[in-house]
Amino acid sequence: MAICLFTDFGAGDLYVGQVEAVLDRLAPGVRVIHLLHEAPAYDLKAAAHLLAALAAGLAGGHVLIGVVDPGVGTGRGAVVVRADRHWYVGPDNGLFSVLAARAAQCAVWRIAGAPAGASRSFHGRDVFAPIAAALALDDFPGARLAPADDLSVRIGGDDLAEIIYIDHYGNAWTGLRAEALPHDRVLVVADREIPHAGVFGEAPPGAAFWYANSSALVEVAVNQGSAANVLGLETGMAIAWR
Amino acid sequence: MAICLFTDFGAGDLYVGQVEAVLDRLAPGVRVIHLLHEAPAYDLKAAAHLLAALAAGLAGGHVLIGVVDPGVGTGRGAVVVRADRHWYVGPDNGLFSVLAARAAQCAVWRIAGAPAGASRSFHGRDVFAPIAAALALDDFPGARLAPADDLSVRIGGDDLAEIIYIDHYGNAWTGLRAEALPHDRVLVVADREIPHAGVFGEAPPGAAFWYANSSALVEVAVNQGSAANVLGLETGMAIAWR
Amino acid sequence: MAICLFTDFGAGDLYVGQVEAVLDRLAPGVRVIHLLHEAPAYDLKAAAHLLAALAAGLAGGHVLIGVVDPGVGTGRGAVVVRADRHWYVGPDNGLFSVLAARAAQCAVWRIAGAPAGASRSFHGRDVFAPIAAALALDDFPGARLAPADDLSVRIGGDDLAEIIYIDHYGNAWTGLRAEALPHDRVLVVADREIPHAGVFGEAPPGAAFWYANSSALVEVAVNQGSAANVLGLETGMAIAWR
Repeated sequence: MAICLFTDFGAGDLYVGQVEAVLDRLAPGVRVIHLLHEAPAYDLKAAAHLLAALAAGLAGGHVLIGVVDPGVGTGRGAVVVRADRHWYVGPDNGLFSVLAARAAQCAVWRIAGAPAGASRSFHGRDVFAPIAAALALDDFPGARLAPADDLSVRIGGDDLAEIIYIDHYGNAWTGLRAEALPHDRVLVVADREIPHAGVFGEAPPGAAFWYANSSALVEVAVNQGSAANVLGLETGMAIAWR
Repeated sequence: MAICLFTDFGAGDLYVGQVEAVLDRLAPGVRVIHLLHEAPAYDLKAAAHLLAALAAGLAGGHVLIGVVDPGVGTGRGAVVVRADRHWYVGPDNGLFSVLAARAAQCAVWRIAGAPAGASRSFHGRDVFAPIAAALALDDFPGARLAPADDLSVRIGGDDLAEIIYIDHYGNAWTGLRAEALPHDRVLVVADREIPHAGVFGEAPPGAAFWYANSSALVEVAVNQGSAANVLGLETGMAIAWR
Repeated sequence: MAICLFTDFGAGDLYVGQVEAVLDRLAPGVRVIHLLHEAPAYDLKAAAHLLAALAAGLAGGHVLIGVVDPGVGTGRGAVVVRADRHWYVGPDNGLFSVLAARAAQCAVWRIAGAPAGASRSFHGRDVFAPIAAALALDDFPGARLAPADDLSVRIGGDDLAEIIYIDHYGNAWTGLRAEALPHDRVLVVADREIPHAGVFGEAPPGAAFWYANSSALVEVAVNQGSAANVLGLETGMAIAWR
């Protein structure tokens, strides 16, 4: 069981190491895996769909700290979620609600307050990391948790027909699970019609295509190029089908 | 005890992994924590204040390798510093002098020469990492160290009324410790007057405020926005109070 | 023995953590070292020379996963290479051919197919990581490998008189090994004549120079500045001598 981080802390910034230092102190032998630190900072809907897809792809059972948290330090609640085989620790602001809605089994606990001396602006380090460390050591921190009926903010588990993430190659991830989509459909985004291809090398260099990506989501890509640049794509754009 | 890295090597560049490979060979079971690899490359004053704040926030005792080192390979010295509960290994160019001046207890050793075959331009990998590995294993490398009275370059431990770091959200960190500052003061930077708020969610979206950040420094921020962009902030700008 | 990653996955993107999660599951106690995740994505010649230089500088013996793989999912083969003291796992597209040509001892195996359920676009996670995990545990995965006479794509081991990488400081790495080059030679790039200096501090601030860098390659740099910006350098530019 590893501790996986999914945050908007910035991969090159000074927040991630501080979280890892707390985890090292409280759960010394546990590996820390950095899933993403460039999650969309102010788009909880996109972040929730992206986290659900990444978590579904992780074999085994892990503790995931999720932090996309513009309301940190205000009245928003914080939760521990057990959804199928993973634990999740983070804000009760919708971030975990897509994966919770899709889970076969789901339980929720509210996190009661913060430890003495906790920063009001860095709950990832001072509130969530200590709880995640305890969970990773199979030491359920019951004294700090209260069972709850459900999450307070619920986005729901339906697919999202929008671009939710653009990777550094310029590939555009959508919130659509690809499983059930027939390959003869034409995807429409930014007024452009995009045909299907099985993988990058099946499209001519420079050509746009959609495919089922390695996280089982519909992705718009350009072979050896940037779909974001070529097609002018941005997070939040709507996807349609023809 | 972990080995913490604070450098200007670039989080996405090919230097960090080479240091970690040396640490893995010489101190195989010791965790490596990446505090920051985007430290200001040519501003030792800013880097020294930032390192002092980050190190003060680390619980436990660690070995910190600090590398902001434009003079690598020239006559500048190199040191090991024991300041309160942490060890520090790096250049004797002022980088450790803020934290040393603030420490209740401090001892300094000069690093004598470099191992055979060491690169002249990458002391982080070839000189500092082997010493840090030995310290992390509680194996004081006395043969390579000579006790010294003090650091050669001393910036001093006073607060610095300047912007010392801008994070990826666009928040501007200053070198001012927030502890003693009354909250009714108005901060002035770039000819703008900035009021206090307790945390992001207490300011209206788009509004600038100052607050005591999670490393106990005064920070200028904009709720759900970039203070750097909105206010035109840059590292080195002066802070005043009204 | 650590598992070292050299990829174009992007240091801040969501691919690296997925590979690390697989490695954690299959080789739990083995350290993962991130050599570079910003390798040139579509320039296999540059990537092959850079990987050869980095691997030569690693002490001990490691398993390296190398992924610069624009042809993933098409007919390109995949290989395991044993070259001197390291193992390499990745595509058979030339990436390992520079280091293989320079090795005193080299053996090659073809990877036969992909595990059931493997993504067609993310062999780093689904094909290469499981094999690397087995190798790191000294458990040669013979059932998935077939001995081969040689790599299919061979760039050769000769030096490359081009810029192969520009680091975040703006230093320009070349594919020329510096060992045999006399220091009185003048390097010519982008119509500019560049003299030798031993290290950054020996050149005046703002002045360009070439030197033998910490990976034993010829590098063009500017003291306290960006050679890429000052000289207008880009990957692929030719190097000459006068």
